[in-house]
Amino acid sequence: MLSTVIVGASGYAGGELVRLVDGHPSMEVAGLVGHASAGKRLSEVHPQLSGGDRLLVEFDADACADADLVFLALPHGASTQPALELLGRGSKIVDLGSDFRLDTPGRYAAAYGADHPAPDQLGTWAYGIPELFATDIATSDRVAAPGCYPTSAVLALGPLVADSVVSAEGLIVDSMSGVSGAGRSLAEGLLFGTVDESVKAYKVLEHRHQPEMERALEAVGGQPATVTFTPHLVPMQRGILSTIYATPTDGTTLADLEESLDKAYAGSPFVSRLDTPPETRWVVGSNNAHISIHLDADRGVLILMSAIDNLLKGAAGQAVQCANLMFGLDETAGLPREGWMP
Amino acid sequence: MLSTVIVGASGYAGGELVRLVDGHPSMEVAGLVGHASAGKRLSEVHPQLSGGDRLLVEFDADACADADLVFLALPHGASTQPALELLGRGSKIVDLGSDFRLDTPGRYAAAYGADHPAPDQLGTWAYGIPELFATDIATSDRVAAPGCYPTSAVLALGPLVADSVVSAEGLIVDSMSGVSGAGRSLAEGLLFGTVDESVKAYKVLEHRHQPEMERALEAVGGQPATVTFTPHLVPMQRGILSTIYATPTDGTTLADLEESLDKAYAGSPFVSRLDTPPETRWVVGSNNAHISIHLDADRGVLILMSAIDNLLKGAAGQAVQCANLMFGLDETAGLPREGWMP
Amino acid sequence: MLSTVIVGASGYAGGELVRLVDGHPSMEVAGLVGHASAGKRLSEVHPQLSGGDRLLVEFDADACADADLVFLALPHGASTQPALELLGRGSKIVDLGSDFRLDTPGRYAAAYGADHPAPDQLGTWAYGIPELFATDIATSDRVAAPGCYPTSAVLALGPLVADSVVSAEGLIVDSMSGVSGAGRSLAEGLLFGTVDESVKAYKVLEHRHQPEMERALEAVGGQPATVTFTPHLVPMQRGILSTIYATPTDGTTLADLEESLDKAYAGSPFVSRLDTPPETRWVVGSNNAHISIHLDADRGVLILMSAIDNLLKGAAGQAVQCANLMFGLDETAGLPREGWMP
Amino acid sequence: MLSTVIVGASGYAGGELVRLVDGHPSMEVAGLVGHASAGKRLSEVHPQLSGGDRLLVEFDADACADADLVFLALPHGASTQPALELLGRGSKIVDLGSDFRLDTPGRYAAAYGADHPAPDQLGTWAYGIPELFATDIATSDRVAAPGCYPTSAVLALGPLVADSVVSAEGLIVDSMSGVSGAGRSLAEGLLFGTVDESVKAYKVLEHRHQPEMERALEAVGGQPATVTFTPHLVPMQRGILSTIYATPTDGTTLADLEESLDKAYAGSPFVSRLDTPPETRWVVGSNNAHISIHLDADRGVLILMSAIDNLLKGAAGQAVQCANLMFGLDETAGLPREGWMP
Repeated sequence: MLSTVIVGASGYAGGELVRLVDGHPSMEVAGLVGHASAGKRLSEVHPQLSGGDRLLVEFDADACADADLVFLALPHGASTQPALELLGRGSKIVDLGSDFRLDTPGRYAAAYGADHPAPDQLGTWAYGIPELFATDIATSDRVAAPGCYPTSAVLALGPLVADSVVSAEGLIVDSMSGVSGAGRSLAEGLLFGTVDESVKAYKVLEHRHQPEMERALEAVGGQPATVTFTPHLVPMQRGILSTIYATPTDGTTLADLEESLDKAYAGSPFVSRLDTPPETRWVVGSNNAHISIHLDADRGVLILMSAIDNLLKGAAGQAVQCANLMFGLDETAGLPREGWMP
Repeated sequence: MLSTVIVGASGYAGGELVRLVDGHPSMEVAGLVGHASAGKRLSEVHPQLSGGDRLLVEFDADACADADLVFLALPHGASTQPALELLGRGSKIVDLGSDFRLDTPGRYAAAYGADHPAPDQLGTWAYGIPELFATDIATSDRVAAPGCYPTSAVLALGPLVADSVVSAEGLIVDSMSGVSGAGRSLAEGLLFGTVDESVKAYKVLEHRHQPEMERALEAVGGQPATVTFTPHLVPMQRGILSTIYATPTDGTTLADLEESLDKAYAGSPFVSRLDTPPETRWVVGSNNAHISIHLDADRGVLILMSAIDNLLKGAAGQAVQCANLMFGLDETAGLPREGWMP
Repeated sequence: MLSTVIVGASGYAGGELVRLVDGHPSMEVAGLVGHASAGKRLSEVHPQLSGGDRLLVEFDADACADADLVFLALPHGASTQPALELLGRGSKIVDLGSDFRLDTPGRYAAAYGADHPAPDQLGTWAYGIPELFATDIATSDRVAAPGCYPTSAVLALGPLVADSVVSAEGLIVDSMSGVSGAGRSLAEGLLFGTVDESVKAYKVLEHRHQPEMERALEAVGGQPATVTFTPHLVPMQRGILSTIYATPTDGTTLADLEESLDKAYAGSPFVSRLDTPPETRWVVGSNNAHISIHLDADRGVLILMSAIDNLLKGAAGQAVQCANLMFGLDETAGLPREGWMP
Repeated sequence: MLSTVIVGASGYAGGELVRLVDGHPSMEVAGLVGHASAGKRLSEVHPQLSGGDRLLVEFDADACADADLVFLALPHGASTQPALELLGRGSKIVDLGSDFRLDTPGRYAAAYGADHPAPDQLGTWAYGIPELFATDIATSDRVAAPGCYPTSAVLALGPLVADSVVSAEGLIVDSMSGVSGAGRSLAEGLLFGTVDESVKAYKVLEHRHQPEMERALEAVGGQPATVTFTPHLVPMQRGILSTIYATPTDGTTLADLEESLDKAYAGSPFVSRLDTPPETRWVVGSNNAHISIHLDADRGVLILMSAIDNLLKGAAGQAVQCANLMFGLDETAGLPREGWMP
């Protein structure tokens, strides 16, 4: 059994990591790390989990370094310090945060308006979408698991961009997310009274997942990509649906587009192409992604739909999937392939 | 008091019409018409309304012709026959359905895949967005109130297209709607078990509001418009948010765009331009529309957000607003200007 | 027009008061008072309201004393000080808080675990359920509007206790409330992530509305009442449904029970007895209360259902209804009698 | 591997059975039976499940008789005929319906207003609450899995009644359920427009789970029980919370009550007694039940709270738990012990 420490265990993604590791045939929880929640029992922050007597403790680099695997599920900017303390001491690390997703100091500074505190690290972490970067992940001891929105968008667009059947420029990603993606913090914008029975866009033209999408699409396509990204908050707990508008390259047919996706994901246990627009409830609870393609040939507009569970394929599930590859396990080990509907 | 008949009173829009007319200073309900609900008391179909003893009756052209005003709130295709029986007999008609919204038999046939049963009527009905077609409405005895999605999109785009500050071509309208827009019929897709905690797109590339948007934008802009439209269903009762992607014309600045909207709606009591992305809960319960503009000048992409209550500004409220103009009343008479949040 | 100041305008009940006063034929807003929100525009705290440029200001006793009517919509314990500063200076006061609802210092101390800071006031405020205490309200310059749960329970039980057709002892009030009843504060328990898709009981055996129910039932019945009260939070914005278990007195029939309620509310515009269990959506948006009676004669158990909108009949609507009586206006002035479904 | 047929696979409980059996270490799906859905692929009725190509077929007694285990997940009254065709042919049967839950023809006729079509069967089926009737279940080839409401109520009350620390008479069970408990049929009352943002009681004093509760409590307590039961529908997909009012017997203390439950469930992996009122989100997704006890000693009123996932511990999960006992497997095999929050 791989001894596993979960840093940031009190959050929503952290809770899902505990659940997945508890049920994993080859992993076991060796430590639960919190900061504000240090000293609490697991039952106080995650009453839905068993083993509620387990204690959350403060981060301790030595203890983590003894583990085979460390998941970091921390807010933006908080992963760098613990990662630096752990690297090279034997543990493999999967970071669910955004600290190591971008590949150059310049891109990082442009996206975050500040220099990265450890710029040498950028570009040394594998980008953790197993369906597109399996070799990188399997051969690395450090993986930056992607954001939930980029996962949904890049899974749909990646093969098409790589095969040059759509233009990498002028892409529009219009996404809706359940509220768990925003985390568990106290904010007026996350109150039931604010969220229920309403929808809104947020961080218009300034969401940090936009440069991440461009970076990932450039990595798979080998040429610059430009993405306009608009995230929306919708009144549900889980699930992301991205509706994507792209321009097919000259002469591309619907069959070409379908073939591109089908070929890319022929061996992928978690990605399915549907003939109908996916509903998020079809994937919630599983590590699956559902993608559909719709072509308006007359107008030269391609529409892609991509649905995932933001806490599983968009966070904890994908992180475990990466770890499976890093340790040579079956890619599907410990991961749910069937959802919860209703 | 204007005697008013509501045909299709048992539906959601019909119920809102009853509520608005009951509270209107210059209108009173003279008749409630249903078909499947004929013979029922109002309290059986709308327990939220007062005067629950009022009886729903079958459509009777003579009775309607005696009224000053007839609202038709019927499913697609069902308005034509009653309208033909009423026209020219003295009542003014506001149709909330889609039968008379398009302006030519050719466009109708393309949109609906069938010939219009009364093609001579097409083009003789005013298109009922008071903010853009006030004179047409005020001088007509027949008004086709627009669909909920077109209302949200055309209010945002109309002035910009008319002022040629955005291109009328290549428009993308990506909309989210609460479930009441789909009506009250029994369908698996409208069950709580299907809708709650999930989002989906539907009628991708084939929704009938798409040609209506093109028609309306051509009417205000004087040149052909092309729109790609994707409607989504989100788990809430009311509200539409349209996120619109457009290309500004050369040299257009954010100030130009804002000025175009501000000028167009300077005297409009129900349309507000916000500096932040609107949330649907800010307009639900009122006849208001909230619009925001976001420009990515570097990439040449303009994003518009437009929020309305689909049953009020998108249906019953706008229908009453049209009727107010048709009878020379204050445009705001009987219409709520303040919403319900939470 | 009665000049009206709303103290606590930034909360949910405060927002509804602004909306009701804005639409009232005989009242107008003379001032909006906030504390944390002082200095903000109304549009910043209530984007759903018109007149968004109106400024919220700090409480000023002189300014309030100039008004005809002052609504206090403040957290528990915060009404006493401003009320003391205003009493006897000419304004009439309706307090939506809990400071003056109990009638004796002893009962207050038992309920709140502390002495009342102005014990002389207790018993001098009318208890503001207009259907049961109309004369008290109409002849008072100070009214304590009841809590939302007590309103729902006392409207159903009051006449039956007064007519001695049910026992005043051993009453069980089991209530469900939408989240707006808990107010707008930042708390883990009010996050969408916590509330959505879940139900729970809270403050079991220690909710402060329990002694208020006993006090009110004693006032109408003239004998001690004992109530066990369990409030539950359910995932919706508005609405309270109380399911009440009582013991009918010997020989009481269903007809007796129905007659008791019907007689009590024959002249009440807002209370209806239904033959079927009420749904909260039938009253949300209106000032109405819907009540049903169900008798299990074999087992000697009576079940009452009572539904209201907690922000209207349970708070702002009832406060305006009280003010209407205090100023000799029509009881229904400015109050919605039709709800919003859906 | 135990070959397993699921009859009624297209419903919500049926879908959960497929998911549980697919993930079970000792069971495998040998057949999926539907009626209206016969001929469809699994992906058409349960897009959330894998193996979507599996075909639903009409019921065939011979095929079922070849299986080791048959789950019947059918509407009320529909289980009797297939059960009669299967009994004695070698398969073990777990019926999730209500046909065989009551123990005598008289009780059945009183509850359902009709004679049972196979009265000899009544009393020969084990009642499937493993925590209370383990031996019956383990030694039977036919088990009637209990209803969702009775499961929640009887788990909380059973030990207390058996230990005579509460009276078996005058019990009040006030329950709230998510909508999935009502199944997947098309009905106005199950539309999102009807259910969302509203609560209601239904089948007041006439719900068929009431006699089932009395029967089960008599079986554990050895004396007649009387229950008043009120079910409520709340706007969520899953979860039941029962709030139960009972009278402690003379001299009973809170410690006595807690000890009674703790002793009864000391070896039960799925039942936990909490010190705080449970929230349904803490159990949704797992086979767990959470119970709390609250005593108002002064008034002699005991309140119990009991929360389960109606589709798991209240249906499919408990059915699998029963099957585990019937085949001598670990009671927890294939059953989730950790929930999904959020």
